[in-house]
Amino acid sequence: MKASQFGPWWNFKLTFIRKAEKQDRAAIWTILKPIFRAGETYAVDPDISENDALAFWCDGSHSAFVAEIDGCVLGTYYICPNQGGNGGHICNCGFATHADARGKGVARAMLEHSLKTAPEMGFQAMQFNFVLANNTRAVAIWQRYGFDIIGRIPKAFNHPEDGLVDALVMHKSL
Amino acid sequence: MKASQFGPWWNFKLTFIRKAEKQDRAAIWTILKPIFRAGETYAVDPDISENDALAFWCDGSHSAFVAEIDGCVLGTYYICPNQGGNGGHICNCGFATHADARGKGVARAMLEHSLKTAPEMGFQAMQFNFVLANNTRAVAIWQRYGFDIIGRIPKAFNHPEDGLVDALVMHKSL
Repeated sequence: MKASQFGPWWNFKLTFIRKAEKQDRAAIWTILKPIFRAGETYAVDPDISENDALAFWCDGSHSAFVAEIDGCVLGTYYICPNQGGNGGHICNCGFATHADARGKGVARAMLEHSLKTAPEMGFQAMQFNFVLANNTRAVAIWQRYGFDIIGRIPKAFNHPEDGLVDALVMHKSL
Repeated sequence: MKASQFGPWWNFKLTFIRKAEKQDRAAIWTILKPIFRAGETYAVDPDISENDALAFWCDGSHSAFVAEIDGCVLGTYYICPNQGGNGGHICNCGFATHADARGKGVARAMLEHSLKTAPEMGFQAMQFNFVLANNTRAVAIWQRYGFDIIGRIPKAFNHPEDGLVDALVMHKSL
C-alpha cells in the first residue's frame, strides 16, 4: 500500500459511530472538558463539574453517541427532543470533537450519522438553538448540509475574546 | 363605595406578586395542571406528573413567583437563565394564569413584574423560545411590551386542534 492511502480521508472512512456506553464516559469527558473550559462555543458554565457535564451530555432525554478512529473515541454527539410534549418531534444535537482529531472529518461523519439516526428515532426536523455567529466554520457546515438560519438572537453570548456575539437558530426538516 | 369600583380594574390594581414559597406549590399545580393537560400552549408532556411539573416550574435554575388577588394565588411565573455559562445574561420566563382569573390583568401584571425583576437579577434581555404563532393574544401582548419576533420555527408544535403550527422566538433588551 502507498502512504497516500493513509491520508486524512483514510481516518474519515474508518470513523465508526455507535451509541455511547458507560465505559465511554471518561473519553467523552476528555473531549468535552477543554471545550467547556474554554467557554467559547457552548453556553455551558465553563467551570462545570465532570459529573454535571456528563449528565448534561448523556443522560435524561439525551442519547449520546461516540465516534471512534482505530478504537479511540475522538468525537461525541447527542440527540434529544428540543422541546417536550407536542413539540417533541424536532430534535436538537450537540457535537464535540477531540482537538487531536480536528480536520479529519469526524464532525462531518457525526453530523451525517445524526441526520440518518434522528429520523429513525422518529424526529421530523433538527434544530440548533445557539450557533454562535462568529463560529463561521460551524455555520458554513450546517448550511452545506441544508440547515436554514431561522432566527438570530442579538448579543446572546459573551465570548471571552470577541465580547457579545449573536447566536443563530438553525433548522432542517428531515 | 360604588359597585363599579370592584370591576376588573380593581382586581388588577390589587394583584400582589411575590416569590413563590413551598406552601404555594398546591396552588401553582392547580394553575398549571389544566394548562399542561390541554397541551395547547406549552411544549410540556400533557401527562406530566405533579412533581415533575412543579420541579420544572419552580426548581433548578428557575425562580418562581405567584400573583395573589385577595390572598388567592391565581397566577404564577418563573424566571431562569435561558442558557448557561456565557449565555446566562438572557433570561427566559413562563407565565400561567388560573382560568378563573383570565382577563383580569393578572398576566399583564406578572409580565410587568418580570420586566422589573429580571434586570434586578442581572439579566440584560428576556427571550421566549417557543411562542405558538396561533396564540395571537400572547404574541400581541409581548409585542405591545416591546418584544421583537427574532425567529420562526416551522411546524414546531403539534396542536391538538390546529395541527402543526409554527413557534416564534421573541426577544426584548432590558
